[in-house]
Amino acid sequence: MTEHPNSMGSWLKTGVIALATSLTMNAASAAEGDIIHDGEYNFLRAQHGEKWDAQDVEIGDALAAIRDANGGKPPNILYVLIDDVSFGQMGSRKMNYVTGFETPNINQLADESLSLMRMYTEPSCTPTRTAMLTGRHPVRAGVEEVKVALVGEGLSAEEVTIAEILKEVGYNTSHVGKWHQGDIEQAYPHNQGFDWAAFPLHQQVQLSLMTREAMVANNMLGFHASGQSGDFAIDQRFKPYGLVTGVEAEAGGLAREVDMAPGEEWTQAKYEDMNQRYQDQAIEQLQKLAAQDEPFFLQYWPLYPLNFAYSDQARSRNGGFMADKMEVLDDWVGELMTALEETGKADNTLVILMADNGLMYHYEGTSGLNQLIYRGGKTQHLEGGVRTDAFVRWPAAIEAGSAAGDIIHVSDLFTTFARIAGATDHIPRDRVIDGVDQTALFLMGEGNSRRDYVYIYEGPVLRSIVKQEFKMHMPAPGQPGAAAPVFNVLRDPREQHAQVGYSLWSGASFQDMLKRHQKTIAKYPHLPLGKDAPYGGIENLRPESELARQVFDSWQ
Amino acid sequence: MTEHPNSMGSWLKTGVIALATSLTMNAASAAEGDIIHDGEYNFLRAQHGEKWDAQDVEIGDALAAIRDANGGKPPNILYVLIDDVSFGQMGSRKMNYVTGFETPNINQLADESLSLMRMYTEPSCTPTRTAMLTGRHPVRAGVEEVKVALVGEGLSAEEVTIAEILKEVGYNTSHVGKWHQGDIEQAYPHNQGFDWAAFPLHQQVQLSLMTREAMVANNMLGFHASGQSGDFAIDQRFKPYGLVTGVEAEAGGLAREVDMAPGEEWTQAKYEDMNQRYQDQAIEQLQKLAAQDEPFFLQYWPLYPLNFAYSDQARSRNGGFMADKMEVLDDWVGELMTALEETGKADNTLVILMADNGLMYHYEGTSGLNQLIYRGGKTQHLEGGVRTDAFVRWPAAIEAGSAAGDIIHVSDLFTTFARIAGATDHIPRDRVIDGVDQTALFLMGEGNSRRDYVYIYEGPVLRSIVKQEFKMHMPAPGQPGAAAPVFNVLRDPREQHAQVGYSLWSGASFQDMLKRHQKTIAKYPHLPLGKDAPYGGIENLRPESELARQVFDSWQ
Repeated sequence: MTEHPNSMGSWLKTGVIALATSLTMNAASAAEGDIIHDGEYNFLRAQHGEKWDAQDVEIGDALAAIRDANGGKPPNILYVLIDDVSFGQMGSRKMNYVTGFETPNINQLADESLSLMRMYTEPSCTPTRTAMLTGRHPVRAGVEEVKVALVGEGLSAEEVTIAEILKEVGYNTSHVGKWHQGDIEQAYPHNQGFDWAAFPLHQQVQLSLMTREAMVANNMLGFHASGQSGDFAIDQRFKPYGLVTGVEAEAGGLAREVDMAPGEEWTQAKYEDMNQRYQDQAIEQLQKLAAQDEPFFLQYWPLYPLNFAYSDQARSRNGGFMADKMEVLDDWVGELMTALEETGKADNTLVILMADNGLMYHYEGTSGLNQLIYRGGKTQHLEGGVRTDAFVRWPAAIEAGSAAGDIIHVSDLFTTFARIAGATDHIPRDRVIDGVDQTALFLMGEGNSRRDYVYIYEGPVLRSIVKQEFKMHMPAPGQPGAAAPVFNVLRDPREQHAQVGYSLWSGASFQDMLKRHQKTIAKYPHLPLGKDAPYGGIENLRPESELARQVFDSWQ
Repeated sequence: MTEHPNSMGSWLKTGVIALATSLTMNAASAAEGDIIHDGEYNFLRAQHGEKWDAQDVEIGDALAAIRDANGGKPPNILYVLIDDVSFGQMGSRKMNYVTGFETPNINQLADESLSLMRMYTEPSCTPTRTAMLTGRHPVRAGVEEVKVALVGEGLSAEEVTIAEILKEVGYNTSHVGKWHQGDIEQAYPHNQGFDWAAFPLHQQVQLSLMTREAMVANNMLGFHASGQSGDFAIDQRFKPYGLVTGVEAEAGGLAREVDMAPGEEWTQAKYEDMNQRYQDQAIEQLQKLAAQDEPFFLQYWPLYPLNFAYSDQARSRNGGFMADKMEVLDDWVGELMTALEETGKADNTLVILMADNGLMYHYEGTSGLNQLIYRGGKTQHLEGGVRTDAFVRWPAAIEAGSAAGDIIHVSDLFTTFARIAGATDHIPRDRVIDGVDQTALFLMGEGNSRRDYVYIYEGPVLRSIVKQEFKMHMPAPGQPGAAAPVFNVLRDPREQHAQVGYSLWSGASFQDMLKRHQKTIAKYPHLPLGKDAPYGGIENLRPESELARQVFDSWQ
């Protein structure tokens, strides 16, 4: 077992005077030029700042040495974000036996990586992606959950993405696959820092469930016109229609829809073609980017390759209609890693693979996926919604086969990528950055995280606060902190046995954490979500999409 | 993914005529001289007998070659059976991070072993141990669950244990630790094939929970006289008292109680001393047995080293009063494996480590242990009650770091140990042996199990039937098979989403399995449990134990 320094012990040893000094120093260092962090992080920095500053000198030297050995360049970054997969569903032979499907390529990646055993995401696709792109809790950018149909909303142009930051220091950047940051022009990846992007404008529910096939498979009842009688239906616009599917674009240019001709019907076969195309494009982009002199940042965010019709040719022992597709995803990861090796640049490429949130548990029992260890799934603040397998591979700098039980949050990737790329100076200083620099954790390993807390939102609502092994579910409105259920996630990973003792002793401490978070919000209020007419900047909008857009405008 | 031959395919290819021949052959081979198996096994043998017979020739050659290289001797066997630990709680770094306690020594053992990923036990301590010792479902020997107090019952002298069988071919045999096969003389290990034994006459609930300390720790309310007012109590014999604790004995001799002087009170400290003594004695026995010329069979069945008082000095990150003790058990396994290496005989020693059933879930939330992946625990037919981590290490013959998803049942160890020791001829032919010879699985690896089914009893009641990935919970009395809930344990490891479709198609097949099992029972009825006056054969019975025995006799 790794020794964890007893931070409360060090705190007490520091004494009141040293503490006061430290807090003053921190206040001073929060002046112009410093990143604005959440109050909780500042509270930790006041306890550990000196140690962290000393570590940062070492880390700076280490990064410089790696750059020097790499022609002066920082590493490439390949970020693979998989859709809706729960903790334990990839990367472990033992768990493969439990689930009955195999992930040999991801298991191998895990063996070559630092496994982050306590990676927290947001509970749903859009917010997790916003957190990673901006280093901010999505709620600070006005982002909650992007809905399935037209919304005229999305990631604001005012937000600064990691792609924009990496571009500042010379990275070439590409995005392939799911994006899900809104249907307005400013939110598109090629307008948010990516040189090139191929992505669907909406997401997999639209793309895999809103089909005639999914209705016939008993999973999207009544969606398709052919499955409705239409009797008594007055509103002909109740369901989404004419939605734009996959588009491609270069930075600053117009997007072009590539899947659909006017009047065509979206089908399962088209969805599968789209998934395969993104896989092929991810590899093409990897090869193209690796052939250039500049360092690269490639985001490959595959859609979950769902088919809601039950297969008559099971692939895995599990055979469930979602479970089998984990093996498809694993194949894709294997191809991608082989392609990376073939570029000859794998040693200096930081690869991160993880999922964006827990499984779509709604189809549990038939899909073949299940909640496994943690209770809950996508959309929920429970551990099953926000814990995911996460692996970080960087042969030049990260110990293969290592693991860390430290808490880390997906927003930390923003800050950490920036640091590793030498782009920290380009992180904006006028807004809160929740992401913490975790370079120490990556390079020095377990026990070196700079957070032991996470605030968990469902959309705009704070639902849980995690601190160390404890987790408080927020009490019902008007209820005191001592009435909040508090769980120990090591002893009770399914959050089913709230211990009255915990909330009695931890209630005040959790309330203090809440206040530190709220004070930060009061000082730096949330910024607004981007809003605009939907489907801007698409050069070949189909007539049905244009109609959908007009209908949407008509009631705004 | 390993290829699993489609057995139904082969069956169909064989054709009706070949099938009839095969069944006839099987009936013929069930004559005198053959082991009597359950009908379900015979049904499988009819489908695969030729293949298995051919494999057995190969296996015979392999075992002979190993014996030849080992001075003509079969391997030593070291069987470590841990109390009440659920699947996933030992042997996996990933799961160590989930639980917050570490099992590095067992993880290392797992790395050096064949991991049996689908080992089924009986749902409770006594029946699991009976199944292993006799190769029979405990119900066939009249064994249900041995209770905490005096019972005057236990494993019958008519049962033939694996120790007795191994002795027939020259093994030296020792038993150390938990036994839990009853409080009558014939049931004691030194009367059931062991040359020497040190064991408690009862079990851990008596030994760890029935203490003043456990009552003070809020876990055994009112048990101790000091915690009762006694008002309105007429019966002074309502609770167990004067129970015999730990004894030691040689084969055929009298047992001697070693823990207690007359009038002494059993305490937590005494329980801890007992646990440590068994650990020390296991290593002493290992050293002694390894120094002799004969092959040896050593059973070390540690008690779970419980302390129901919450520690004020947490050892693990979890820190729960049961969780911390897993680290103690892991230390003990490490010491034992080191001692084995030091004997110089590790290469030719078959080591099996597993647990006897799932956790004592009754203390979930505070104990630090939890159900993890599978629902349920000790006493329950749910997967959480009967699935356990199991590792088989034999450097001379078994591939290190391998794993098998095949179904295996604890009773198979009986038959397999006998085969590996060259003692199959000594398995009795006058009763049903449920244990299947799994030497092919051990030596040839995944896909070579000779069972794809398990019948799961709770005491005398058949509660579930497992076949492949399907599991039927027996329907309520009088309900038809199609009403039985059927689960897919790969898709739904917590058995929470019974699929109506499953029971409709599998109902008839499960009913056929039930009939094959019942026909075997009708032909070979269950044998009676051993019964006698309790506490026979103890040379230094304390007066309070003698009184307890007299009181017990008084109402028989």
